[in-house]
Amino acid sequence: MRRLRPEPLTPEAFAPFGTVIEADPASAIGINAGFTTRFHALAEVEVEGGAPILSIFRGRPRPLVIDMLERHPSGTQAFVPLGGRPWLAVCAQAPGAPLRAFLARGDQGAQYARGAWHFPLLTLAAQDFLVVDRAAPERNVELADLAEPAQVALDG
Amino acid sequence: MRRLRPEPLTPEAFAPFGTVIEADPASAIGINAGFTTRFHALAEVEVEGGAPILSIFRGRPRPLVIDMLERHPSGTQAFVPLGGRPWLAVCAQAPGAPLRAFLARGDQGAQYARGAWHFPLLTLAAQDFLVVDRAAPERNVELADLAEPAQVALDG
Repeated sequence: MRRLRPEPLTPEAFAPFGTVIEADPASAIGINAGFTTRFHALAEVEVEGGAPILSIFRGRPRPLVIDMLERHPSGTQAFVPLGGRPWLAVCAQAPGAPLRAFLARGDQGAQYARGAWHFPLLTLAAQDFLVVDRAAPERNVELADLAEPAQVALDG
Repeated sequence: MRRLRPEPLTPEAFAPFGTVIEADPASAIGINAGFTTRFHALAEVEVEGGAPILSIFRGRPRPLVIDMLERHPSGTQAFVPLGGRPWLAVCAQAPGAPLRAFLARGDQGAQYARGAWHFPLLTLAAQDFLVVDRAAPERNVELADLAEPAQVALDG
């Protein structure tokens, strides 16, 4: 099986697939009489024909075999870890195109752009994530099996 | 100064002011080949005339003196702790009405309903929060000073 080496999650590297959610000093504003720093508008939620909702995903470690991808054509989907543990975002421009794996620190979330192909939640330790996506009666997911699965190689 | 004793944050008690965001077993769905449990649609984000955005609030402990309230007339505002530490949500039906303080566990978030009067972020230990609210060019906050401030009494 092909081996897929993760790269660090940075806003620049992840840009083709979405937005990194992290405490970016460039976005810092002091509020609440100085007791709070607001890192403002790190990501904009986009939903078409539905309502944005907040859910919790309780993730468990799973084999790091990337054998399919999915995407949500009608809205963004954000994942923010609540346990402070690292996790992986795996994406591709299209099924069959080169896969990219991003190793996120425990203080980094990511929002997949509308329609961005990605693997489901891959956490390196059991933890909860806050998820911001879209609720609507109709289906908002497309799935694609990969002819050539890949194994994420954390040890390089 | 009046003393305000916190009560536990529960969906029922908090209902007049908004929605509790926690892993409610009644909302659990198994997804991702069984490796993820989705606690679905715990809160619905509401924004009028603007876009929903994700921000990080870095909160520091501050004196627990409730001397003002604020509200956001054009949208909901959700706070989810990223550090797993307890925090307080303080609300009232209106400025001058009885204050209520809710002690949230570190695995509980809360979304203030549109227009709900609340005190700004009160965390009991320094930690970050994911905040989901509304961005728009016009102002979306009303402030009210309280004639009779209250002191939250954590020790009962």
